[in-house]
Amino acid sequence: MVTRQEDFSKWYLQTIQQADLMDYSPVRGCMIFKPDGYEIWEHIQKAMDARFKEEGIRNAYFPMLIPESFFNKEKDHIEGFSPELPWVTEAAGEKLEERLALRPTSETIIGDAFSNWIQSYRDLPLEINQWANVFRWEKKTLPFLRTSEFLWQEGHTAHADGQEALDRTMRMLQIYKEVVEGVLAVPVVDGEKTPSERFAGAVSTFSIEAMMQDGKAVQAGTSHYMGTKFAEAFDIRYLNTDNEHVYAHTSSFGVSTRLIGAMIMTHGDDKGLVLPPAVAPTQVVFVPVGPWQKNPAILDKIHELQAQLKAAGIRCRVDDSNNSPGFKFNEWELRGVPVRIECGPRDLENAQVMMKARDLDDKVAVPFDNFLASVQAELASMQGRLLEKARQMNQANYYTDINSLDELKAHIESKRAAGQVPGWVLAGWDGTEESEDKIKEETGFTTRNIPFAGQVPEKATCIVTGQPAKHTVWLARAY
Amino acid sequence: MVTRQEDFSKWYLQTIQQADLMDYSPVRGCMIFKPDGYEIWEHIQKAMDARFKEEGIRNAYFPMLIPESFFNKEKDHIEGFSPELPWVTEAAGEKLEERLALRPTSETIIGDAFSNWIQSYRDLPLEINQWANVFRWEKKTLPFLRTSEFLWQEGHTAHADGQEALDRTMRMLQIYKEVVEGVLAVPVVDGEKTPSERFAGAVSTFSIEAMMQDGKAVQAGTSHYMGTKFAEAFDIRYLNTDNEHVYAHTSSFGVSTRLIGAMIMTHGDDKGLVLPPAVAPTQVVFVPVGPWQKNPAILDKIHELQAQLKAAGIRCRVDDSNNSPGFKFNEWELRGVPVRIECGPRDLENAQVMMKARDLDDKVAVPFDNFLASVQAELASMQGRLLEKARQMNQANYYTDINSLDELKAHIESKRAAGQVPGWVLAGWDGTEESEDKIKEETGFTTRNIPFAGQVPEKATCIVTGQPAKHTVWLARAY
Repeated sequence: MVTRQEDFSKWYLQTIQQADLMDYSPVRGCMIFKPDGYEIWEHIQKAMDARFKEEGIRNAYFPMLIPESFFNKEKDHIEGFSPELPWVTEAAGEKLEERLALRPTSETIIGDAFSNWIQSYRDLPLEINQWANVFRWEKKTLPFLRTSEFLWQEGHTAHADGQEALDRTMRMLQIYKEVVEGVLAVPVVDGEKTPSERFAGAVSTFSIEAMMQDGKAVQAGTSHYMGTKFAEAFDIRYLNTDNEHVYAHTSSFGVSTRLIGAMIMTHGDDKGLVLPPAVAPTQVVFVPVGPWQKNPAILDKIHELQAQLKAAGIRCRVDDSNNSPGFKFNEWELRGVPVRIECGPRDLENAQVMMKARDLDDKVAVPFDNFLASVQAELASMQGRLLEKARQMNQANYYTDINSLDELKAHIESKRAAGQVPGWVLAGWDGTEESEDKIKEETGFTTRNIPFAGQVPEKATCIVTGQPAKHTVWLARAY
Repeated sequence: MVTRQEDFSKWYLQTIQQADLMDYSPVRGCMIFKPDGYEIWEHIQKAMDARFKEEGIRNAYFPMLIPESFFNKEKDHIEGFSPELPWVTEAAGEKLEERLALRPTSETIIGDAFSNWIQSYRDLPLEINQWANVFRWEKKTLPFLRTSEFLWQEGHTAHADGQEALDRTMRMLQIYKEVVEGVLAVPVVDGEKTPSERFAGAVSTFSIEAMMQDGKAVQAGTSHYMGTKFAEAFDIRYLNTDNEHVYAHTSSFGVSTRLIGAMIMTHGDDKGLVLPPAVAPTQVVFVPVGPWQKNPAILDKIHELQAQLKAAGIRCRVDDSNNSPGFKFNEWELRGVPVRIECGPRDLENAQVMMKARDLDDKVAVPFDNFLASVQAELASMQGRLLEKARQMNQANYYTDINSLDELKAHIESKRAAGQVPGWVLAGWDGTEESEDKIKEETGFTTRNIPFAGQVPEKATCIVTGQPAKHTVWLARAY
């Protein structure tokens, strides 16, 4: 196994395959989600979906194929997505009259439906979510993080006024942050994307961004305020209380299976995956040790303890294969199982097991009579530790004292020379696309987002021009 | 509203739209699942998925696009599906070298993956399920029952020997029967499809079939034993304990969103939907009656009772709109809400509410102090009643004493003349495709399935030829 330090990309690709999360497929840029990889997604879905339902957002399902004419209704939208669309041109042996795109996102087809469903202020707000597969024919792909087909949820809402739509946008960003930090233990910074990084057709786009161990950023979730742009394109109008036909204000928001990649790149170590207990397909693995095959009482005891965990809803399994304990330890560490329980003849005598958390070096003895509570506490504790550890990694790699492009280039150079990651840089920006382009061209860094007021110390001058800064932005290389 | 008797098809289309389950879409044959329609699917998914997991079948996700060359590997498979496939021929502005089909089912792409994953007998059984959208470009479509895009689950398993694969096939049919009868309250008959009705590429196909109120059949779920046909096409071989490379035996099985249509056509009445409590998006609706707006204690009490139900996990809502009670009653009956609770001033005085089940004519008084238990009992009771009522409808429309095509034609004619449904006919069949074709041409009836041994009285002679019957089959018109 290559280490993260030696080659982070290679480490990532090795880890996800050896841990059996995914496989490549014969279709360019499309991956297979194997059971352990898919189950992580199921746990993310469950956590997100429960919160959507609490918000009163209901699931629905819209056709995957979108007529070409729909894209052409919103100019920015088609410009943004057309370079990446796959098209169905034939079906059932006949050429179609109009090409049908495989959805890259569903604003257009949902906008068309909303225009039929919304007639009066009484029909608002209308708040819908969809769990679906989407397609973006990417040139460069990377499993989980950027694939031609991926899985996601997309929320779409319509409101009587702009403030309510904007509130929804901000609320969903908050929910994303809570789930990504709380369930995936991945800390994020939230803020607004710059105009050049906006969703195609949005008035404003907000994101949560996460720092990977190689210092690069992953955009982990976005929410968009559309103003009345899609309402105008699709004629989503309603009769207000003054009996006027006016446009609704819409929003959309999404997170995808790229969260799985972000979680792996945040927590993994040189032994393999490190999975937060909340999403681990197996949370606890039992490994019998010593001459356990000659002593059936050991496996009996393990099954008794396993039953306790199962009854408490903990996902666990027993590795009673004939492999050596050392082989098993490596295997389950590679797969990122949060807690390992060892039990051998001496443990049985002492009425205890040995417990090891994936992220700690030492084992601890746990008496039988305190077993369930100890495991529960360790799982909860590990969930918190992973978030804290990732926060500390982030803190150590945020730089706030870099004030010119030359300083930024020198910083990147010196970090690389030292075998360290350049991390993220908080910079002043004059708000022009020219400055943004220049940062990218000269350093490879891009604007991640503009933190909300009060979250970071404001920078006075633009890192490119030295002119007064209009915004303070996070800069980083990004996936 | 048209009645079922007047025009069953029209009644169905009116009901599903007015009850807000679906909408048409701008894409030919593709429908929109609105929140109430989609939520029914979510309840079906939950029930099925829990049982799959109990069986040790794990979820995964495979690419939706399937290279044309994959289809060509299994001759029967491509013949069966090619007339219905939509094709992606262009992506990201370029013509593709090989056409990619939108999956109609995933045996081929999963077979290819299995050939990589299965090397040794230790890798078996391999049992995978996928929840996905699939495409079959149908000429005639009907919402839920036959759409160009639909949602389903498809299980795919590989086993060391044929008996184990066949056992899995039969076990899944049993699970489908349990869920469709237990959760959707739709009674089914199980059996084997005739060779001409087999899944394209299967050695044997089994089905559950349900009778609708118009006497037509819906194939409600299928499971397939593939023998080694797909293993040979995709080279799924393993090293057995004798160190020989041998082919695995595979199976597949699926149910889809057509179950929603079958459920509606089984239980609906002339007032609209009748939903089994297990899948109803709203299980209980509260309607305040009398001068409730002047008496806030009524709504307070209703909210208190609603909180009791919510705490018990019952999906409920309060209709406190300004519509009249009569309007509300009609509205919630149309939407099929299982239980309605009315509360007015006199009820408050008597410390009771009035409870009405969707499928019964009379209201009953329920004292406040027995409220939760009464509602729970009524929901459970209605679930059972709907199944029993549908079983009785089936029993009344099975015909077992029709022994020739002339008798069958006369039977259909007399039923139609009387405004009754022709129902299903249990018939002897000589096992030839010629006889099957002749039944279809002359009566429109098709073979549904061959009941398993001992389930029905065996017929001695073929309904077409009068020769000794090889099988006893269910015949019906089908969706």
